Amino acid sequence: MLRTHTCGQLRSEHIGQDVTLCGWVESKRDHGGSVFIDLRDRYGLTQVVVGPPEADSALIDSAGRVGTESVILIRGKVSPRLEGKVNEKLDTGEIEVRCEHYEVLNPCPTPPFTPSQQELPGEDLRLKYRFLDLRRPAMLRSLELRSRIIKIMRDYFAEHNFIDVETPILGRSTPEGARDYLVPSRVHPNSFYALPQSPQLYKQILMVAGFDRYVQVAKCFRDEDLRADRQPEFTQLDMEMSFVDQDDVMNMIEGLVQRTAKELKGTDVTLPLPRMTWDESMRRFGTDAPDLRFGMEIVDITPIAATCEFRVFRGAADGGGFVRGIRLEGQATEFSRKRIDELTEYVKQDFGAKGLAWFRVEDDGKLWSPTSKNFTAEQLQQIGEALEAKPGDLLMFLADTWEVTCKGLAGLRKRLGAELKLYEPDAMSYSWVTNFPMFEHDPEEQRWVAMHHPFTAPLTEDLDKLKEDPAACRAQAYDLVINGSEAGGGTIRIHNGETQQQVFELLGIDEQTARDRFGFLLDALKYGAPPHGGIALGVDRWVMLFAGLDNIREVIAFPKTQKASDLMTEAPGEVDAKQLKELHLRTVKV
Amino acid sequence: MLRTHTCGQLRSEHIGQDVTLCGWVESKRDHGGSVFIDLRDRYGLTQVVVGPPEADSALIDSAGRVGTESVILIRGKVSPRLEGKVNEKLDTGEIEVRCEHYEVLNPCPTPPFTPSQQELPGEDLRLKYRFLDLRRPAMLRSLELRSRIIKIMRDYFAEHNFIDVETPILGRSTPEGARDYLVPSRVHPNSFYALPQSPQLYKQILMVAGFDRYVQVAKCFRDEDLRADRQPEFTQLDMEMSFVDQDDVMNMIEGLVQRTAKELKGTDVTLPLPRMTWDESMRRFGTDAPDLRFGMEIVDITPIAATCEFRVFRGAADGGGFVRGIRLEGQATEFSRKRIDELTEYVKQDFGAKGLAWFRVEDDGKLWSPTSKNFTAEQLQQIGEALEAKPGDLLMFLADTWEVTCKGLAGLRKRLGAELKLYEPDAMSYSWVTNFPMFEHDPEEQRWVAMHHPFTAPLTEDLDKLKEDPAACRAQAYDLVINGSEAGGGTIRIHNGETQQQVFELLGIDEQTARDRFGFLLDALKYGAPPHGGIALGVDRWVMLFAGLDNIREVIAFPKTQKASDLMTEAPGEVDAKQLKELHLRTVKV
Repeated sequence: MLRTHTCGQLRSEHIGQDVTLCGWVESKRDHGGSVFIDLRDRYGLTQVVVGPPEADSALIDSAGRVGTESVILIRGKVSPRLEGKVNEKLDTGEIEVRCEHYEVLNPCPTPPFTPSQQELPGEDLRLKYRFLDLRRPAMLRSLELRSRIIKIMRDYFAEHNFIDVETPILGRSTPEGARDYLVPSRVHPNSFYALPQSPQLYKQILMVAGFDRYVQVAKCFRDEDLRADRQPEFTQLDMEMSFVDQDDVMNMIEGLVQRTAKELKGTDVTLPLPRMTWDESMRRFGTDAPDLRFGMEIVDITPIAATCEFRVFRGAADGGGFVRGIRLEGQATEFSRKRIDELTEYVKQDFGAKGLAWFRVEDDGKLWSPTSKNFTAEQLQQIGEALEAKPGDLLMFLADTWEVTCKGLAGLRKRLGAELKLYEPDAMSYSWVTNFPMFEHDPEEQRWVAMHHPFTAPLTEDLDKLKEDPAACRAQAYDLVINGSEAGGGTIRIHNGETQQQVFELLGIDEQTARDRFGFLLDALKYGAPPHGGIALGVDRWVMLFAGLDNIREVIAFPKTQKASDLMTEAPGEVDAKQLKELHLRTVKV
Repeated sequence: MLRTHTCGQLRSEHIGQDVTLCGWVESKRDHGGSVFIDLRDRYGLTQVVVGPPEADSALIDSAGRVGTESVILIRGKVSPRLEGKVNEKLDTGEIEVRCEHYEVLNPCPTPPFTPSQQELPGEDLRLKYRFLDLRRPAMLRSLELRSRIIKIMRDYFAEHNFIDVETPILGRSTPEGARDYLVPSRVHPNSFYALPQSPQLYKQILMVAGFDRYVQVAKCFRDEDLRADRQPEFTQLDMEMSFVDQDDVMNMIEGLVQRTAKELKGTDVTLPLPRMTWDESMRRFGTDAPDLRFGMEIVDITPIAATCEFRVFRGAADGGGFVRGIRLEGQATEFSRKRIDELTEYVKQDFGAKGLAWFRVEDDGKLWSPTSKNFTAEQLQQIGEALEAKPGDLLMFLADTWEVTCKGLAGLRKRLGAELKLYEPDAMSYSWVTNFPMFEHDPEEQRWVAMHHPFTAPLTEDLDKLKEDPAACRAQAYDLVINGSEAGGGTIRIHNGETQQQVFELLGIDEQTARDRFGFLLDALKYGAPPHGGIALGVDRWVMLFAGLDNIREVIAFPKTQKASDLMTEAPGEVDAKQLKELHLRTVKV
């Protein structure tokens, strides 16, 4: 190595040693005829002093001219810092290196921005000059954390006898699901590979092949219009097990959750994790990914609303809708009308709610609001009791369809939980949501679609409902939820060809289409498929959650923008006509 | 878990226990009113006996009808096998399970082939029914070995403080090198991503970003016409280090070689590994990937040939060619004329040699051949001495250009090494070849091409030759060679923008083109790039070498054929017109 030590390594015990350091010039300043350089590398920062008597004036001059972010190599002796100059905040703060030799390995002109500058430049500039942006300690830390989390996952599954198998990136297009990225074939004209949306079918094949326990950190691809927290390529910890039921898969993952929390946060997670059915989760939290770091559960007061004179409540209740609310503890006097109006706008804009009703709980325990005259005292009391209201609380209600009350109240809950700081910033909550519906009805396409994917097994007791009542048929499906985010989703799979055909039919995939697209899976199910199931964990999401970040691009080294561009390499880009010709393709000018 | 134990777990210490096993029916036979089933899973084979008194006749009947490769669950008691029936070859051979309960989890009709059948079916059938083929213990073992090798690699680099960083699969097309796989962009009409041929540029960017040590098990893609040992997608252990010279990278990899050999083979590898320059390797072995498991080095007798009357030798020597040969120890009487004729055909066909000359070393130490009359006794003696010939040896020579003698003799050496069993079947040899030429001259395109890639740094002492004598300019490049195969290749990179520009120019990439394709790299080199270098190890190759296999498709779960097809999923396939329309593409009918 060109260096003897890193910039994070030297301590007072090294005093007197001759060392060579390499790194980037984080900053420099002239002071009393010496040049002080803060030399940075991945491991830390060391103060280098270029001054007499070790350095002659030529050396001092040249050090004085070095540009920030230049790469230099220095040799010198480790020395104690002067009294009062010790920097407690720095691991190397007790020492400095007095430079005897100095070499610029690569100079740097003024960069578009520096990693140490206080205010971050716009994200586009950061992405274009990602090599500068990644020098920021925050980016380095988040990618180190990512590397560590993936290592923990891999080690855990290796210890539990999982085989790490790589499945193909060049696969077959199966239009069920999201939009595929396609790769034209040169050898087979007018044929295309597709990049995998997940290794789902391959891992099922591995179970049929008797691999028993499979794991892979897998790249997956979806050509979707990107929301803030999506990327065209993303990473899943993908696993599958044979001869299991859903408890076995969940137990395996709980062990991983426990270990990860211990290693990264030093906290002990009690197992088993809380489990809640999908029905219960929608009822209590309005979402299938409830944030259990705080309470503020949803309460249904439809029966009370059905009796009142308040048109909004009564109308919803009479029209088959629901009136549901939440309680903001001690917030009665904290929330101005303006703030309530903001929240009203929020539920209208984001969730299509018609409005937001609210009550203040007065000192005497009575509910008051501008509309409280439309309620009898008894009704107000019942509402208060339903929400366990105490003096000083603020109650908020939506009166709408089940879906709108779910989404609106879940949104309010999420926002208020953060704004009111209802949980510690580093609190973590882990739980399961189970018994998802098998199907959702797509009103646009007028057909059933699979809530997870078409290979999900129904609950054994719901098998009959496959035909009779698809809407009521529940799945052997389970989502891992961390801090109100879906951190993983899994199912037990159908291991029986007939059931698989039946589900395909229900989804409107006729026998021929099923054969064309999934023939190999149907074959595999025919020739000795074991019962099996698994889960996929969102690696990007895990890193975000454990790092406390809310932008997926902060946990990916080279992310794409929301327009799926890489601003650094300028991908995607034009290609030579020759390349297209070889692929038997012509572009259609837009 | 549906089972209490695996099929490889039960020993005599379990006798008397009630157990539940799940697995595949490997075979069954009726004997004395009982049905004996060999039940198989990933972990082993257990004998299950369905017979009286535990099983009633209905159970015995139904077990008798179960098809091979069906998946069953059985419950019963672990019992000792009868005396004389213990199967020493089987880990579970001391016991059997006497079945009390029996359930078919999934029946299997007669499969296209069974994993246990003696003779393998054709590879096409194996690939089509890969889920059956992967049940064969040999396939399972080779994929377990793969998983283990990758784990050893990852653990090793994690211990050495490397950060595992995922680089993008959707990148930018850089037509230098092999042919790219393209991915049309929907969002950006007429633009394309390319799948990476390697993460080369991204890992250099990470060094510029100060990551210091990077590692990744990376999928790489090349759309080439496939040779037997290539795949359109393949896996590299990719790493990069900053502030290093080539010894640092080689030392790091040697530690990995040592550990891998120890863990997989139990052998101690002495470090440092042998190192040889490219010149020396071509001289002694005719190849840049010499197999050091045996001798049979190439000897140059051109000076002797230049004096003889044998037209073939004399002509080559006079025409600027070479006469070089190898010695087959003790093979003088073993090789028939027919066998020599076969080898002659081989060097003609495969390497364009004009013929193969040979000498037998007689009991008196004298060389004899049909053409020996064209040599003086002294010349024959000199030839014998040059090759250190002993009575009973056979000498073989090619007289041709340097290239043909290299390729032909390397080919002969490889073939004879295997045929004559000159090394133990499980012998392993590891070595380095260094100081590769920077450039090769492409006679077709009449230009210089990079021997490794355009980012390779020249040897410091050869910097001047970049302009003056590109052919003589050597690179800071090093290949790891295992058993005569390239198992990895690395270089120290250019970390200086000017040198990089100079190399681009030499390769015929003008400034504008360089800017268009590699602008971000040139920027990165400008803004503080540290000296850096790395290596990529061929993971598929490593697994083949450590497993002793010579077909890459035996170490990949779902490989493609030589026509880049997946016979199981039938990828690539046709796609919907709608998909192409969204991508602004039209296919050109062929």
